[in-house]
Amino acid sequence: MTPEEIKSVLEAYRTGRLSMDDAVERFRTLPFEDLDFANVDHHRVVRQGYPEVVFGAGKTDDEVVEIVRAMLPHEHNVLVTRTNPIVAERLRELEPQARFHERSRALAIIRDRTVQGRGTVMVVSAGTSDLPVAEEAVVTLETMGHTVDSLYDVGVAGLHRLLDRGERLRKARVLVVVAGMEGALPSVVGGLVAVPVVAVPTSVGYGASFGGVAALLGMLNSCASNVAVVNIDNGFGAGVVAGLINRL
Amino acid sequence: MTPEEIKSVLEAYRTGRLSMDDAVERFRTLPFEDLDFANVDHHRVVRQGYPEVVFGAGKTDDEVVEIVRAMLPHEHNVLVTRTNPIVAERLRELEPQARFHERSRALAIIRDRTVQGRGTVMVVSAGTSDLPVAEEAVVTLETMGHTVDSLYDVGVAGLHRLLDRGERLRKARVLVVVAGMEGALPSVVGGLVAVPVVAVPTSVGYGASFGGVAALLGMLNSCASNVAVVNIDNGFGAGVVAGLINRL
Amino acid sequence: MTPEEIKSVLEAYRTGRLSMDDAVERFRTLPFEDLDFANVDHHRVVRQGYPEVVFGAGKTDDEVVEIVRAMLPHEHNVLVTRTNPIVAERLRELEPQARFHERSRALAIIRDRTVQGRGTVMVVSAGTSDLPVAEEAVVTLETMGHTVDSLYDVGVAGLHRLLDRGERLRKARVLVVVAGMEGALPSVVGGLVAVPVVAVPTSVGYGASFGGVAALLGMLNSCASNVAVVNIDNGFGAGVVAGLINRL
Amino acid sequence: MTPEEIKSVLEAYRTGRLSMDDAVERFRTLPFEDLDFANVDHHRVVRQGYPEVVFGAGKTDDEVVEIVRAMLPHEHNVLVTRTNPIVAERLRELEPQARFHERSRALAIIRDRTVQGRGTVMVVSAGTSDLPVAEEAVVTLETMGHTVDSLYDVGVAGLHRLLDRGERLRKARVLVVVAGMEGALPSVVGGLVAVPVVAVPTSVGYGASFGGVAALLGMLNSCASNVAVVNIDNGFGAGVVAGLINRL
Amino acid sequence: MTPEEIKSVLEAYRTGRLSMDDAVERFRTLPFEDLDFANVDHHRVVRQGYPEVVFGAGKTDDEVVEIVRAMLPHEHNVLVTRTNPIVAERLRELEPQARFHERSRALAIIRDRTVQGRGTVMVVSAGTSDLPVAEEAVVTLETMGHTVDSLYDVGVAGLHRLLDRGERLRKARVLVVVAGMEGALPSVVGGLVAVPVVAVPTSVGYGASFGGVAALLGMLNSCASNVAVVNIDNGFGAGVVAGLINRL
Amino acid sequence: MTPEEIKSVLEAYRTGRLSMDDAVERFRTLPFEDLDFANVDHHRVVRQGYPEVVFGAGKTDDEVVEIVRAMLPHEHNVLVTRTNPIVAERLRELEPQARFHERSRALAIIRDRTVQGRGTVMVVSAGTSDLPVAEEAVVTLETMGHTVDSLYDVGVAGLHRLLDRGERLRKARVLVVVAGMEGALPSVVGGLVAVPVVAVPTSVGYGASFGGVAALLGMLNSCASNVAVVNIDNGFGAGVVAGLINRL
Amino acid sequence: MTPEEIKSVLEAYRTGRLSMDDAVERFRTLPFEDLDFANVDHHRVVRQGYPEVVFGAGKTDDEVVEIVRAMLPHEHNVLVTRTNPIVAERLRELEPQARFHERSRALAIIRDRTVQGRGTVMVVSAGTSDLPVAEEAVVTLETMGHTVDSLYDVGVAGLHRLLDRGERLRKARVLVVVAGMEGALPSVVGGLVAVPVVAVPTSVGYGASFGGVAALLGMLNSCASNVAVVNIDNGFGAGVVAGLINRL
Amino acid sequence: MTPEEIKSVLEAYRTGRLSMDDAVERFRTLPFEDLDFANVDHHRVVRQGYPEVVFGAGKTDDEVVEIVRAMLPHEHNVLVTRTNPIVAERLRELEPQARFHERSRALAIIRDRTVQGRGTVMVVSAGTSDLPVAEEAVVTLETMGHTVDSLYDVGVAGLHRLLDRGERLRKARVLVVVAGMEGALPSVVGGLVAVPVVAVPTSVGYGASFGGVAALLGMLNSCASNVAVVNIDNGFGAGVVAGLINRL
Repeated sequence: MTPEEIKSVLEAYRTGRLSMDDAVERFRTLPFEDLDFANVDHHRVVRQGYPEVVFGAGKTDDEVVEIVRAMLPHEHNVLVTRTNPIVAERLRELEPQARFHERSRALAIIRDRTVQGRGTVMVVSAGTSDLPVAEEAVVTLETMGHTVDSLYDVGVAGLHRLLDRGERLRKARVLVVVAGMEGALPSVVGGLVAVPVVAVPTSVGYGASFGGVAALLGMLNSCASNVAVVNIDNGFGAGVVAGLINRL
Repeated sequence: MTPEEIKSVLEAYRTGRLSMDDAVERFRTLPFEDLDFANVDHHRVVRQGYPEVVFGAGKTDDEVVEIVRAMLPHEHNVLVTRTNPIVAERLRELEPQARFHERSRALAIIRDRTVQGRGTVMVVSAGTSDLPVAEEAVVTLETMGHTVDSLYDVGVAGLHRLLDRGERLRKARVLVVVAGMEGALPSVVGGLVAVPVVAVPTSVGYGASFGGVAALLGMLNSCASNVAVVNIDNGFGAGVVAGLINRL
Repeated sequence: MTPEEIKSVLEAYRTGRLSMDDAVERFRTLPFEDLDFANVDHHRVVRQGYPEVVFGAGKTDDEVVEIVRAMLPHEHNVLVTRTNPIVAERLRELEPQARFHERSRALAIIRDRTVQGRGTVMVVSAGTSDLPVAEEAVVTLETMGHTVDSLYDVGVAGLHRLLDRGERLRKARVLVVVAGMEGALPSVVGGLVAVPVVAVPTSVGYGASFGGVAALLGMLNSCASNVAVVNIDNGFGAGVVAGLINRL
Repeated sequence: MTPEEIKSVLEAYRTGRLSMDDAVERFRTLPFEDLDFANVDHHRVVRQGYPEVVFGAGKTDDEVVEIVRAMLPHEHNVLVTRTNPIVAERLRELEPQARFHERSRALAIIRDRTVQGRGTVMVVSAGTSDLPVAEEAVVTLETMGHTVDSLYDVGVAGLHRLLDRGERLRKARVLVVVAGMEGALPSVVGGLVAVPVVAVPTSVGYGASFGGVAALLGMLNSCASNVAVVNIDNGFGAGVVAGLINRL
Repeated sequence: MTPEEIKSVLEAYRTGRLSMDDAVERFRTLPFEDLDFANVDHHRVVRQGYPEVVFGAGKTDDEVVEIVRAMLPHEHNVLVTRTNPIVAERLRELEPQARFHERSRALAIIRDRTVQGRGTVMVVSAGTSDLPVAEEAVVTLETMGHTVDSLYDVGVAGLHRLLDRGERLRKARVLVVVAGMEGALPSVVGGLVAVPVVAVPTSVGYGASFGGVAALLGMLNSCASNVAVVNIDNGFGAGVVAGLINRL
Repeated sequence: MTPEEIKSVLEAYRTGRLSMDDAVERFRTLPFEDLDFANVDHHRVVRQGYPEVVFGAGKTDDEVVEIVRAMLPHEHNVLVTRTNPIVAERLRELEPQARFHERSRALAIIRDRTVQGRGTVMVVSAGTSDLPVAEEAVVTLETMGHTVDSLYDVGVAGLHRLLDRGERLRKARVLVVVAGMEGALPSVVGGLVAVPVVAVPTSVGYGASFGGVAALLGMLNSCASNVAVVNIDNGFGAGVVAGLINRL
Repeated sequence: MTPEEIKSVLEAYRTGRLSMDDAVERFRTLPFEDLDFANVDHHRVVRQGYPEVVFGAGKTDDEVVEIVRAMLPHEHNVLVTRTNPIVAERLRELEPQARFHERSRALAIIRDRTVQGRGTVMVVSAGTSDLPVAEEAVVTLETMGHTVDSLYDVGVAGLHRLLDRGERLRKARVLVVVAGMEGALPSVVGGLVAVPVVAVPTSVGYGASFGGVAALLGMLNSCASNVAVVNIDNGFGAGVVAGLINRL
Repeated sequence: MTPEEIKSVLEAYRTGRLSMDDAVERFRTLPFEDLDFANVDHHRVVRQGYPEVVFGAGKTDDEVVEIVRAMLPHEHNVLVTRTNPIVAERLRELEPQARFHERSRALAIIRDRTVQGRGTVMVVSAGTSDLPVAEEAVVTLETMGHTVDSLYDVGVAGLHRLLDRGERLRKARVLVVVAGMEGALPSVVGGLVAVPVVAVPTSVGYGASFGGVAALLGMLNSCASNVAVVNIDNGFGAGVVAGLINRL
């Protein structure tokens, strides 16, 4: 129910076209979607620099293209996750600014370049195989309007590579730390900084890594208290959480 | 190695008391703990309103008392988690401001009441059995100098209790959401707000809740993108992460 | 917002005490708890013969007694699950009709004896160790106003005991089937009847029963298509679902 | 043993063609399949509007076609689950009314359009990826002779979409609720209605959804008491259970 | 329905006291428990040297005593598993031959000493902590009338102890092999003999033995083809299976 | 060390060519493979009607053909499991009696048709999808020289199909029972017979069957005491165990 | 068969008291326990500085005392794991050198102080709660005659504590690294040294540590290649492996 | 920071080109990778006969070739794991000594043939399907400069094959034992030798082997105390650990 509809009910009542009981009934069944706070999907995007997001996994190429086509008239940024080069090509025809990120298989259409964050978000990853997930976080953050620094291939078995960049780590306002295998990197990074760390386990590993379970458990049991965790391989979710923190 | 020590080596070399090779050796074996950034445990506490924390679980009463006694000369706030009334009594003799929170079994000694956060942290919990974990988060946040609002017993099977407090929810700068059983509350709350949500699964539940695993998986798989998760029953960790976010 | 409040806003607007914009604002922030359909907790109970329910597990004796005391002024039936004889004794002092069921550890206060169901609900259990769960379902159903028939100790390794009661099984309008160990009973019963079967796995078993997981998986994978499952040991939930079906 | 056979034994005994001992022996070894109540597979179908069902998974195309060919002479409805367009084409040649549902990969041959249910069954699903499972439930219900309403894409992170259809939800006599990821939708829907909810977890999800285990556990641990659960992705089973309930 | 009852129906029909239709009805509803083959619980025991068995776990002392008291008038052997010395004392008062086996917590009343097996059953166990389970198998076998040989403490890390008894191993007609920890003993024994091996995993072990899961998996994956497995700690079941084999 | 070698050492000692100490040393290091009892792989086959077995899974076609070629000079039966039609074709060229069983993907070369068993082994399976595993057991048993009866598609949701064949079931000396999904069939069959039942879980199922884990747990927790279990889909192992039992 | 027995057979043959065939038979059935290499349990201990070990868990006090009493006449060192102060007191009466280690609940009787290792074994642990396991490794190593250095409370969230002791770490010939929670310490230590690391996961942790499973998986998936793992809480096993390495 | 750089800072300070404060700052931010002990990746390789290692899994062919090309100028040995014949061909063009091991899919470039170990490393495997993992260990060891003996196809169900090689087993200084299925071989081998055993579970197996979990648990629970475990299928890691031990 829009404010206009509310007004028309009020007016109908005032002028006697609607009895009080009928007016009461109309308000009692007030559709929820018109309440401001619940309109999160749509309104929040506009005000907050959230990109419009299409989860590409499990959708046909045609479905993804059609959804994006419907989004283009609004001037928001658009992010398509887990898509492919063919969709990318078709979307570039619709909107030349569409850019496909091969490693993360994400496609971003950035039209609003307003900076939303107050500082830098640092994305750290343990091994080269973790890069697709790390870069999904990076693309997500950039599409949301954040400044990103990244530090790749700094696994815990070669600490010096990490320690050497202590300065850069400590400059971040929030960090996304991505790791597979034993998932120990967020604990180590968490001990080096005094800001929130969003940890992303990846499905990278062999044998008893069980598709990321080992890394997930490692991160949930982190002995560093400033670590919170998102789902396995969920670079997008980590980017959103880190972006929301950086926007504060 | 303190700056003073570095200076004394430099001076010894310049004045010839130390050969170049010996000076090189001294720097090569430079003890790490003196590097500023690595001194996280100690320095970070002082500067940042972190409480000194003692994990009570698995320690004897005597051990807890001795550790706290050693901390008291510094003027930091002190938080002891998972302790008991007997320890609380002994600590109150050492420091009358010690306050034991029965439900969360946490003890707080708050001497520095500086407000560290920029907004309010909202702690939401699903059922009354989740209260011990929710209150551990509250005590942690208060000891860190944050303003906390709380909303208890608003499980997803009775949505109206939650929806009715939409206004308060949306005023929070960051939320801690605590739930056992199916762990759905963070998804629902995450959909109602546009700020980060720190989700805490609890071990509350029957049968196939498997000591909190059902809630943990529910939260990791949240369809709301602004949710990050800490370990089962880890109210303390959720409080620390939320506090760090609110301090930004 | 009660109908009265809605009326008073309408009246204030009609008489000019409230501008249209202010009236619109009042309706837009309409508190949700007043919407009829969301008031499930309270209204649904009154109209539908649902008992008021107190989950006793994890609550202190005092808490349970206080909650029940607050419920007594309404004339609903009351069900307390997983409680104990001491609480039962105290509740009998408040309300002489309180009756404690030792095996299921449930306490029922039945004041409204209106029959809510249209037929009989049959509760079947596999072994004597499954009785506490089966009887929790029975007490739940009786407190909700249903007629219950029960058939105990008819495990699948002694089929004749079950087959002999085919007539009674087929008279039920809905069945609750309770089993631990391999949890095969709902499949067998499901094949003998043409009505819905609510299956309850129990934690009864040895070794690789894993606290009811074996029975739970057995029931979820039932080759009988008329079987739906509730949580391990959840006799209460099975009773509620079966009761709602029988009420249709 | 048909009544005719029983009669012929009785007659043979009465006329002396069979000794008493031989007659006793004949009855003692009475084949079970002739007992009315055990002939569920066949008789139940005829009387109750159950479709004949062929589980397509794991069968060759030829096997499915042959089984359906054998079913056609009876005038029942026929449902083939998890089949493919090639089988569909071949079956359409046998019976022009065969209709293939692409998303659910189910094929229905509806010849008997008698309405079996007393009300509407509502099928609700959380995300677009859950549609194949939701539609398997819909096709199953329609083939069984039920009126179905459906509500798709109403996940718990966007509650307003669900709450807005409160009226339609509450009109259903029984609901099937389909969800992957955290599987929270049945808890929320269960809290909004006062009738049975059949929950179907789907294998939709990423990382720690573990092929539907997260959703399954979420549903089994639902804090709403009117929820019962079927196997992961088992839209067919949910349809059968809901149909049996609606037929009561 | 006993043969006598069948005869009386036949007679009533022949003499005209019962119409054919009524006789048919009587036979159609023939109670199953009277069919010989389904009366396994009772008849099988009598004919086959099976003991009457009472599973003591989860029963009160009084319940166990009452059940045994009801069994005593028959002259079968009686086996009570997982009971305690107090019950044993009470049973000895009822029947002086009752003998309690402390380690296995089994009580046997052996009155019929007929040898049921054709050869020797060998019970082998890996460690001293596996003895309670091994001895439950021994007592079960002895109560069933089998000759038992046993070989204890012959774990695979000290092969010579096992190999030295090759002669005795190869004399057994069937073996029960009991092991916890890695559960490797049945594989090794299975390779040394050419008869069936019934493997029993025990819950003995530390850390990642997970209450017998490691041993259970080890046995299910045995590279020896003559090994079949029963539930964790199920010495009774292993004894029954081995006894049935030895009786052939 | 062959008997010949032993003799030659003895002779060398007697004639003085070997000192006593050297002779002692020779015997102390006696190679184990010559000891009769340990030569199980080879000798056992010859004497006992065991087929020579080649596990086809994980071997190249060439490897399988070469291994079988090496076996052919002996006159044993040969069984190749989990192979394919191309290997079958090549083996038929080597030995025309080679017969490929398509459903079980087993190839048998039966040259010795001596009956090894004393009775009939019954192979029972629950659904048509379980047939490949059931038939692997059948082929194994036939290659070992056993008489096999089989009973397919008698799942527990349609008990009458099973009960009707009670006579045949009870004629078997040992049974192999194969089932996927909830794996309840061995419990039901176990209750109907008084001989050993070898249960084989299959990986047949949907969703929470977890590749046969549900069936496996169901069988391990069987309430029938005469059931022992082999690995998931291990028709071969079940055949071997049942054959060894039937040979006694 | 002892060398003496071998000699007597040889002699009997040479002097004609034993035929060649009988002598061959005697050697063919040669009991294995007399073969040198298989007598590992006993001989290995004597030669190699292995302590005699009694696993105290699951044994009664009396059993432990009796086993140790039987060991005392030999002059080996004795180690009793997981015992208690009462047993310790009784053993001190038998042998005054018995020393009970309270934290690890191990008792050592060290009589042979020969140094068996060639270098130092370093035992590192992450948290104070890991100390019982770490000290079990230390006591095991000391009883085996090794020089031990230890470094406690150097968890990965406070790296500087560890890095500061780089010198001592790199002096060890082999390291035992003990950690609970995320179990990341062995990866970090493994990256700092160039010798073997024996990792011990502990059951220390909360929530999703699952009794040490998280740490175990973390260690098995270590990105450092020089790490091998023993069972959860198995300080004894780690000590033995490290000791055997250091003895080389 | 190399010694040269340290010297240049010292010199700049001595000659006044750098103030003391600037010099202090330079040393305080000393890059860690230049510290000797932390330079594990690079320096350790040179001194210790470690090969340069490229993990081929998850890398494109081009990436592997480029990394190896960059390594060739140094004279170290190079090991590429989990690669393929096409990469092998391309690398042979760069360096004719490159040798591809088909079964293990490892490629080795051995240019430095210095023997690094002090004794022989024995690699033992249970079945032929375990060979790829066993040979990965062998290639790793050879590339590290160790002498390797190997013993294949000695599973525990045919002990004599293993026992017969007791002499060779006991000559090894350290053993790598590879097994799938029940993973019992390391326990048996561990009991026959008095040196460290590095156990490698493989993913070889059927059904309830769960991709190597059964073997992994078997090895972690080994009753032989001299066994430590690496990840499933991790032949490389086992080779590295065994090589480091043999180098001591």
